[in-house]
Amino acid sequence: MMASISTTKNTDLDAALTAAINNKTKPLGSLGRLEQLAAQIGMIQQTVAPVLKSPAIIVFAGDHGVVAEGISAFPQDVTWQMVENFLAGGAAINVFARQNGIELHIVDAGVNHDFGQRDVLHQRKVAPGTRNFAKEPAMSAAQCQVALQHGRDLVSVLKGNVLGFGEMGIGNTTAAAAVMHKLTSVQVADCVGAGTGLTTAGILHKQKVIEAAVNLHSEVGAPLDVLACFGGFEIAMMVGAMLAAAERRMVLLIDGFIVTSALLVAARMEPAILDYCVFSHQSDESGHARMLKELDVNPVLQLDLRLGEGTGAALVYPMVQAAVNFLNQMATFGTAQVSEKSVD
Amino acid sequence: MMASISTTKNTDLDAALTAAINNKTKPLGSLGRLEQLAAQIGMIQQTVAPVLKSPAIIVFAGDHGVVAEGISAFPQDVTWQMVENFLAGGAAINVFARQNGIELHIVDAGVNHDFGQRDVLHQRKVAPGTRNFAKEPAMSAAQCQVALQHGRDLVSVLKGNVLGFGEMGIGNTTAAAAVMHKLTSVQVADCVGAGTGLTTAGILHKQKVIEAAVNLHSEVGAPLDVLACFGGFEIAMMVGAMLAAAERRMVLLIDGFIVTSALLVAARMEPAILDYCVFSHQSDESGHARMLKELDVNPVLQLDLRLGEGTGAALVYPMVQAAVNFLNQMATFGTAQVSEKSVD
Repeated sequence: MMASISTTKNTDLDAALTAAINNKTKPLGSLGRLEQLAAQIGMIQQTVAPVLKSPAIIVFAGDHGVVAEGISAFPQDVTWQMVENFLAGGAAINVFARQNGIELHIVDAGVNHDFGQRDVLHQRKVAPGTRNFAKEPAMSAAQCQVALQHGRDLVSVLKGNVLGFGEMGIGNTTAAAAVMHKLTSVQVADCVGAGTGLTTAGILHKQKVIEAAVNLHSEVGAPLDVLACFGGFEIAMMVGAMLAAAERRMVLLIDGFIVTSALLVAARMEPAILDYCVFSHQSDESGHARMLKELDVNPVLQLDLRLGEGTGAALVYPMVQAAVNFLNQMATFGTAQVSEKSVD
Repeated sequence: MMASISTTKNTDLDAALTAAINNKTKPLGSLGRLEQLAAQIGMIQQTVAPVLKSPAIIVFAGDHGVVAEGISAFPQDVTWQMVENFLAGGAAINVFARQNGIELHIVDAGVNHDFGQRDVLHQRKVAPGTRNFAKEPAMSAAQCQVALQHGRDLVSVLKGNVLGFGEMGIGNTTAAAAVMHKLTSVQVADCVGAGTGLTTAGILHKQKVIEAAVNLHSEVGAPLDVLACFGGFEIAMMVGAMLAAAERRMVLLIDGFIVTSALLVAARMEPAILDYCVFSHQSDESGHARMLKELDVNPVLQLDLRLGEGTGAALVYPMVQAAVNFLNQMATFGTAQVSEKSVD
């Protein structure tokens, strides 16, 4: 059923892109990170003249049984309340998506709330929240497969070639930290952070909850098993969506700590997915820097964000546009009759 | 003649802005750098509901007599050739200004070239390039005053409230490094960098040229005297424009190494100007990080740019918009009926 993801590597095209970038009227390498982005997007689209079409962000929402352990600064109801906020257009992701012309999709992946019939909400609820992974696996293997497939299906109807990922779920930094620990062997203390605003004591408690849970489920090791045991429905649905998006050769805009934990699962399954990912920003959530390091990738923005919702993905989009635009629109030394470097 | 620049400080408004930002539906502080930007722009406009109007970038071009010392990787003709490129719309700054809806102004502050009659070029040539500061002061005190006044006049006709600064001038990282050294006492070796692409040997030569020049002009110390002795017409014109823009309470978007050297002069004259400045990015030009540190300011972007032209100012604008937009458009916990933090 699953198509595999091909690497974007292509020596001839890489050389052509490098030449195109270096011939632009600017000192060599002087557009820094944007030059790397331009080359990457050219490789993803296999052209020296990439085009960005109908960018979208999907925000996946889900609840987490592990909140019963008191690991979040906010009550679980905030998950559904924030989904209502997304639907009403009042959250940060609405503001940034509107500003940057990004189509926004909100998905109930497994929120512990009945939203009723709602036109603008994608109803993909696997269950009203996961089980408490401090006591039992968060979801069954079958539920995990359902979530992955929902993610794939959501991507299959998109018209564009850029997809950002966002999430909402009280407790999901705890789930993401557990997934990170299991898939990287980074110790739990270096995976946990303040989430939505825990104190030092709260962070220590969260760490102990995760440590006990990973001891309880010590036999779990394969990426999909880790995802099912510790993840959330929103995280699993993102994994499916990421795999499908990369198969379709879309540009994937990876947001912060939780989205990157989903990408970590996807990358352990299909390492070539990394070729398609723009790491939007380095979150202020303390484990994110280490997670990015484990993936050996560099984020574009460092804005000390720790909000989630795909906000970093929305904010990085103008940088992605800038990269594609300079590649397509800047004059070359030849056409502009600008002299090249005279000394070396 | 010169109005003075008032600080934006206002305790009541500061508290009101903090409350407005903290009441938005997001964890406290979770929009990081954007929250600081929102508060700063509110303070600049003295309101909790700031509005960005008709953003503009002015690119000031000028030539430098010190190129006779062989301190640049590109020939002097590139200054006028790049001005032609700006006028034709093919440079990086054209691309990024277009993308972000920023009005672009190109100024001949002192280019060593006759452009003839050109509708879209602001003709403010003080002289066809400065003198070689390795041998004599770059400009007279009178020329410096003329340049400052041109800068002020250019700002006086702008309709908007956001102004970015850009520059073009072969040799101007050498001028900027000399200005930086004189106004900060950072040693010359830590002020110089590769500019448009010097080798290690080239950088060392540039350093020696500057060291000899600062010895030659060791008596020069006051900010305007330093500007006249080592600066360029584009740098001096930027100083005048920056002072006028801050007097008009505009948001100033400061670009890279050379623009920041102009700001350094302005800030030594009017320290309150810093309240109005958004430091767009940290340039890859090696002295820039140190210059920002001397000013005790934090840049928004770190994209390893070293192009100038105001490109960093154009690229940061969507972040400034995002800051203002979240402040104006996001729902509050109260209006969205989202629960607040439950544990501390």
